[in-house]
Amino acid sequence: MSASLKRRALAEAVGSAALVAVVVGSGIQATELSHDVGVQLLANSLATVFGLGVLIALLGPVSGAHFNPVVTLAAWFTDRRTSGGLTARDVCAYVPAQIAGAVAGAVVADAMFGEPLVRWSTHDRSAGHLLLGEAVATAGLVLLIFGLSKVGRAHAAPVAVASYIGSAYWFTSSTSFANPAVTIGRAFTDTFAGIAPGSVAPFVAAQVVGAVLGLVLVASLFGRQSHPAQADTSSSHGEPELAAPTLP
Amino acid sequence: MSASLKRRALAEAVGSAALVAVVVGSGIQATELSHDVGVQLLANSLATVFGLGVLIALLGPVSGAHFNPVVTLAAWFTDRRTSGGLTARDVCAYVPAQIAGAVAGAVVADAMFGEPLVRWSTHDRSAGHLLLGEAVATAGLVLLIFGLSKVGRAHAAPVAVASYIGSAYWFTSSTSFANPAVTIGRAFTDTFAGIAPGSVAPFVAAQVVGAVLGLVLVASLFGRQSHPAQADTSSSHGEPELAAPTLP
Amino acid sequence: MSASLKRRALAEAVGSAALVAVVVGSGIQATELSHDVGVQLLANSLATVFGLGVLIALLGPVSGAHFNPVVTLAAWFTDRRTSGGLTARDVCAYVPAQIAGAVAGAVVADAMFGEPLVRWSTHDRSAGHLLLGEAVATAGLVLLIFGLSKVGRAHAAPVAVASYIGSAYWFTSSTSFANPAVTIGRAFTDTFAGIAPGSVAPFVAAQVVGAVLGLVLVASLFGRQSHPAQADTSSSHGEPELAAPTLP
Amino acid sequence: MSASLKRRALAEAVGSAALVAVVVGSGIQATELSHDVGVQLLANSLATVFGLGVLIALLGPVSGAHFNPVVTLAAWFTDRRTSGGLTARDVCAYVPAQIAGAVAGAVVADAMFGEPLVRWSTHDRSAGHLLLGEAVATAGLVLLIFGLSKVGRAHAAPVAVASYIGSAYWFTSSTSFANPAVTIGRAFTDTFAGIAPGSVAPFVAAQVVGAVLGLVLVASLFGRQSHPAQADTSSSHGEPELAAPTLP
Repeated sequence: MSASLKRRALAEAVGSAALVAVVVGSGIQATELSHDVGVQLLANSLATVFGLGVLIALLGPVSGAHFNPVVTLAAWFTDRRTSGGLTARDVCAYVPAQIAGAVAGAVVADAMFGEPLVRWSTHDRSAGHLLLGEAVATAGLVLLIFGLSKVGRAHAAPVAVASYIGSAYWFTSSTSFANPAVTIGRAFTDTFAGIAPGSVAPFVAAQVVGAVLGLVLVASLFGRQSHPAQADTSSSHGEPELAAPTLP
Repeated sequence: MSASLKRRALAEAVGSAALVAVVVGSGIQATELSHDVGVQLLANSLATVFGLGVLIALLGPVSGAHFNPVVTLAAWFTDRRTSGGLTARDVCAYVPAQIAGAVAGAVVADAMFGEPLVRWSTHDRSAGHLLLGEAVATAGLVLLIFGLSKVGRAHAAPVAVASYIGSAYWFTSSTSFANPAVTIGRAFTDTFAGIAPGSVAPFVAAQVVGAVLGLVLVASLFGRQSHPAQADTSSSHGEPELAAPTLP
Repeated sequence: MSASLKRRALAEAVGSAALVAVVVGSGIQATELSHDVGVQLLANSLATVFGLGVLIALLGPVSGAHFNPVVTLAAWFTDRRTSGGLTARDVCAYVPAQIAGAVAGAVVADAMFGEPLVRWSTHDRSAGHLLLGEAVATAGLVLLIFGLSKVGRAHAAPVAVASYIGSAYWFTSSTSFANPAVTIGRAFTDTFAGIAPGSVAPFVAAQVVGAVLGLVLVASLFGRQSHPAQADTSSSHGEPELAAPTLP
Repeated sequence: MSASLKRRALAEAVGSAALVAVVVGSGIQATELSHDVGVQLLANSLATVFGLGVLIALLGPVSGAHFNPVVTLAAWFTDRRTSGGLTARDVCAYVPAQIAGAVAGAVVADAMFGEPLVRWSTHDRSAGHLLLGEAVATAGLVLLIFGLSKVGRAHAAPVAVASYIGSAYWFTSSTSFANPAVTIGRAFTDTFAGIAPGSVAPFVAAQVVGAVLGLVLVASLFGRQSHPAQADTSSSHGEPELAAPTLP
């Protein structure tokens, strides 16, 4: 699709806001209703799976539905020599929109539950093994998004990416933030899904390391060329989700 | 499809009844079986996801599967200048059918569980932040339904709308009624999913505000024109779900 | 597909056995692992959703994947004047295969968990409102299966029927047996999913009443003619699931 | 697809590692968060459903996404007289890659949660009825994978195989390992999903017996010929998942 950059940035902001509102809001609801932390994370993760899949299906055709600076940067890096790929100008619009949206989403979630609109999280997440969890989570996310594109299955991204996050909530020790914008947004709420501001920078660093590792895995597993089916899929379905929004 | 208005109204009544029977019935079952309110809402929300998706897939081709007066009104408003769109006469048949169906669904659920057939709910839901939750929930629902249509993905509505509601049960403080007919129906049962009659009017008002906000978001994110793919999808799949039932 | 009647009956037997093994086995596992009956029914219902969807996808192309005498009878009744429909001879092979399979499934489940292979259930399910639940559950199942066929979406049956049962576990008071063969099979195990032999006949009677009601709803909502898309779907996808297996 | 054997073996190793990391990691997270073993297994099984489906969708086009020696051996046996099928040389590369990957996955999961990287499991799983559970679980898995291929639905494998495992976690007494490589990998971690080394050999033996039974069921239910639709699916979608990767 050929939406204007302004509209695409708006889609990134709205999508990132909605994603953080889902994560933070469902975390608050879950802790209000259950004392079993396993039940709380089940609710939190299932609400995220359902919400994220819908957001990618709805906004993918507008902006690519990144909602995530490392995905945007990886898309720019991957397509930097392709004429129709993401440009540096796109990156400079997407990333601030994602971060602003994520913060707004945390505020909206707090407001819906009668919590203070902004209160720094006190949830320390600085243990070293959590950073390994974040690196693994982000490597897997990048491998999935760019790998699906390589095998001509970008159209499956709404279900596949949502499912991946639902799994990574549980199999990584960090519950898989895997997203610098979401990490920043979640610092603004002192509830279940929050992260103390002091833990944000190490998390983001681990995510960047993971993204690089993910791109290495993509090259190792799928090679450098595009799958011939990809072009077909893109042209017939018009679904460049998470991969290659066209220029304005 | 070109079902008669009578048959389309019947589909709206049966679908709304089934939807409320699912919500109320699964709420009763859940409270009978578990003391953990988190587990109760997990069961309630998953049963609704499964049931709502099926209802939209089954009845969408007949009536559009609105089951919801604000969706019907928004569809009429959106299509008011389109020749094949929903007419005022359609609206006048759909909305009463939805409300009558919703009330009947609550009575059927109560009957299946041996509860009094009608007893006004005593579940007060009047806190201000719940109204914000309802407005957000309805804005998201309207954005999703009409946005999917704009990007040519109305065929994904059964899974997408059901998933959205599953997420909104958790991320909104009001557990996302997002539907005036269902709100009225749920006033007739004094069980888990009930709402005190005194809380109904504010909920409906918040839903209307949310629907307007949702339409503004649709226009901002997707523009005024239809996506070219939409016509293709409609004609080849014959799936005008939640969007544009034809005239009788 | 044109499998022989012998092979189709084998598919009905294997599918019914697997379905009951899933229901009974997951019920035993759930009661061994949790004391919260809500968690037990969540596990039991989700395992059934996953298992039933797979069985319909796998065996639908062979036998239609009924696994259920009321579905087989309704298919015969609906297609009795159609040349390619289910014959009385087919019914006489399917129903005994379904019942024998269901009993075998209960025995296999008991064996896998080290329970006595056969022990009559002591789980009384004779309250009147449970019978209303069974009638509603079966009406909904028949409406769904034959309605999907009417609107040309029989190919969605694996996901739709499994989702319906997942919802009906919770919104009906009887947890939705909705199947005479499965009801008989579940009488052979004295575990979570069992039903006392004395409750079987009333359950089956309620299921038959529900099936008739379901067929009335199909006629009211969808009319008598087939949707034009149905023929297309059948011919291009070769998926007569739950509807119209061809003659040998 | 025509990836080199080296790349296909890498895909099998990465996929098997990820699968075991999901199973082991989500098991650790679940036991840290809940005291209810039912909730723990719900989380463990749902995380596996989400993760396994994604892995098959992503890596199926590269290697067939077996991640499982009995599936690889069954594919070789089934296709041994077909020119494009899996060769003995392929088997000799796939199986060690699967086992090495599975062990690495257990180590990664332990590392992410700050557990000792390698510690033999003390979880004895030697009761006779567990072996029956493993045989049933593996028979069902093989029946599903090769049956889907017979009916021309190999493209549904990501969702169908993941759903099957989600069901089999609950309906089999052994929680359905159904995979010799995963069984070996899970011996390396003394956490929720572990298996004592002494129980590994009987589990693998039961899996082999189950795989043979599964192939017998495939022949009984679907006959020896391929479904004509299969060729269509393979050529138009390029998805030989779990069935027939081409030669290098």
